[in-house]
Amino acid sequence: MKLEKKETQISELGEFGLIEHLTKSIKIKNGTTIKGIGDDAAVLDYNNKKILVTTDLLVEGIHFNLIYTPLKHLGYKAVAVNLSDICAMNGVPRQITVSIAISKKFTVEAIEELYEGIRLACDKYGIDLIGGDTSSSLTGLLISVTAIGEANETDIVYRSGAKVNDLICVSGDLGAAYMGLQLLEREKHVFTENSKPGSYRVQPDFSGHEYILERQLKPEPRIDIIKKLTEININPTSMIDISDGLSSELMHICKNSNVGCKIYSDKIPIDITTCNMANEFNIAPETAALNGGEDYELLFTVSLKEYEKIKNLKEISVIGNIIDESDGMNLISDDGKQIPITAQGWNGLTQNE
Amino acid sequence: MKLEKKETQISELGEFGLIEHLTKSIKIKNGTTIKGIGDDAAVLDYNNKKILVTTDLLVEGIHFNLIYTPLKHLGYKAVAVNLSDICAMNGVPRQITVSIAISKKFTVEAIEELYEGIRLACDKYGIDLIGGDTSSSLTGLLISVTAIGEANETDIVYRSGAKVNDLICVSGDLGAAYMGLQLLEREKHVFTENSKPGSYRVQPDFSGHEYILERQLKPEPRIDIIKKLTEININPTSMIDISDGLSSELMHICKNSNVGCKIYSDKIPIDITTCNMANEFNIAPETAALNGGEDYELLFTVSLKEYEKIKNLKEISVIGNIIDESDGMNLISDDGKQIPITAQGWNGLTQNE
Repeated sequence: MKLEKKETQISELGEFGLIEHLTKSIKIKNGTTIKGIGDDAAVLDYNNKKILVTTDLLVEGIHFNLIYTPLKHLGYKAVAVNLSDICAMNGVPRQITVSIAISKKFTVEAIEELYEGIRLACDKYGIDLIGGDTSSSLTGLLISVTAIGEANETDIVYRSGAKVNDLICVSGDLGAAYMGLQLLEREKHVFTENSKPGSYRVQPDFSGHEYILERQLKPEPRIDIIKKLTEININPTSMIDISDGLSSELMHICKNSNVGCKIYSDKIPIDITTCNMANEFNIAPETAALNGGEDYELLFTVSLKEYEKIKNLKEISVIGNIIDESDGMNLISDDGKQIPITAQGWNGLTQNE
Repeated sequence: MKLEKKETQISELGEFGLIEHLTKSIKIKNGTTIKGIGDDAAVLDYNNKKILVTTDLLVEGIHFNLIYTPLKHLGYKAVAVNLSDICAMNGVPRQITVSIAISKKFTVEAIEELYEGIRLACDKYGIDLIGGDTSSSLTGLLISVTAIGEANETDIVYRSGAKVNDLICVSGDLGAAYMGLQLLEREKHVFTENSKPGSYRVQPDFSGHEYILERQLKPEPRIDIIKKLTEININPTSMIDISDGLSSELMHICKNSNVGCKIYSDKIPIDITTCNMANEFNIAPETAALNGGEDYELLFTVSLKEYEKIKNLKEISVIGNIIDESDGMNLISDDGKQIPITAQGWNGLTQNE
């Protein structure tokens, strides 16, 4: 006997019922949260700290495809990408608001799954969910998250502080999220083709590709890197998170800091599984790292004098250095050729990215 | 010769171009805004004030119909409804983030118009636009606004502070926005019917109805009321803004304060043009006030001892008083009958409303 999964229409709970249902288990974790969900606005107290605010929109069919994105992962990711933006200011994320627009195809259980992912990310990173808006939509799902964080004034790192001779560093590895997306798209296509009448149905083949899939479906904000840098007393001169690909983010830092850059192809950290998948797709792994998006690693610059401190740090790669603005933005290839970097925005249209 | 209005495809500007284009004229107005648009997150400084945060989502086809909603008004309203939530906490709004998802049917000029309305509201109320996210959507337009404001701890007014014997007050008049919506819907219907082949086309007839239309299309946050109450030294015991209709908001206050209420039908402020339109539609004007939404007036309670101060205040009506929880929520009709109030959410599904 097959166990039927319970499906509840949202109309059964009603509007206030749904909100109550989704938010009843939310407990406040931060001392800065005076009042969360349940009034016209949330109330926060940051004392003498500076406040950081960022917002991101995820739209079905544009930023995610529910064919291969589990709702729980989607909820987690929607939170993670916003926390990543607070990290990129060298701040500590504390609160989020979550607004969702949902069409009739979603049941209460589906939205619960989404919230399960939101809650998981909030729990993992000690974040309070303090408000939101839940609305109908005529088509599809849309999630809008705003994250709020804190920092001491002197600790905040902008995109604009890179200086000539600074070292350019990235955390983790790049290109994996992009290759994960390529794999998901390919298997979706294979699955769709094989689902046609008369075709032999095959299940998607994801074995051995767990890393790149997880990088695409469940990115993590690098709060650990921010903490590590603070511990060893390094304040980056500039920083940004890599949501649109390395090229695009380098361009933001160079443009805002009025500098140029030189990075070395062989220094770009790329996981072996990313390389393998890139080879399968006939994509140069560096291209995935430079132009693929959604790794949510940190790109930052530090003063040259920090080299000894940074060079052996786990999960940090020094990939190049800042040069004069007039010398442009360049990639030095494995065979020593100098290639100008052109930025390709990825999912873009973002004001605080 | 007809002057053609210039229409620019968004793809002509590109993603960064569009953001640059829409945000280049934005100037910071508040000392609390350290850094607005242009980095991973905005930076705010509230010193020792408490911070208020609220968010609202407006979805095409659910919250607005572009057939009769000019984009400029829509932008204005998206900001206004969020500022209203900050007011409802007795706070001063200072910053907003705006995220929009736009489908291909919108041109650059259309989005400019939307932003023109956003800018107008920001200018009128001294608000800084500090960030956002601009994304594609497969269908229609969606606007997500988060507003941030400030208040001294002792000034913040929650929904939960109403006490037995407190006076129940509302600002302005109620039901007009709802009747404005009914009129727009009727004229849309007439227009659609008359646009069928063979029909004689008529233009919608809105003359004489400017007030109710403006109430629906261009609501104003009652910052003036908040200021007035502060001036005459009245701190409400509880407060909420009327977005879903008087019944629903009364229910929120009573539920959160563990009290009941008694309001008098003949004390509910309703504009004569609202009454006339309600009569045309065979709707009792009180019903429009009680169950219609989107007036964005303030519903608040004050201690009985403030009666002398409040009774002659322009644009404030005392409509009843707080009673014991066990006595329920009641409307006293013109002929003295006691009718239990049942709340009907209007566009609901909101966590911080």
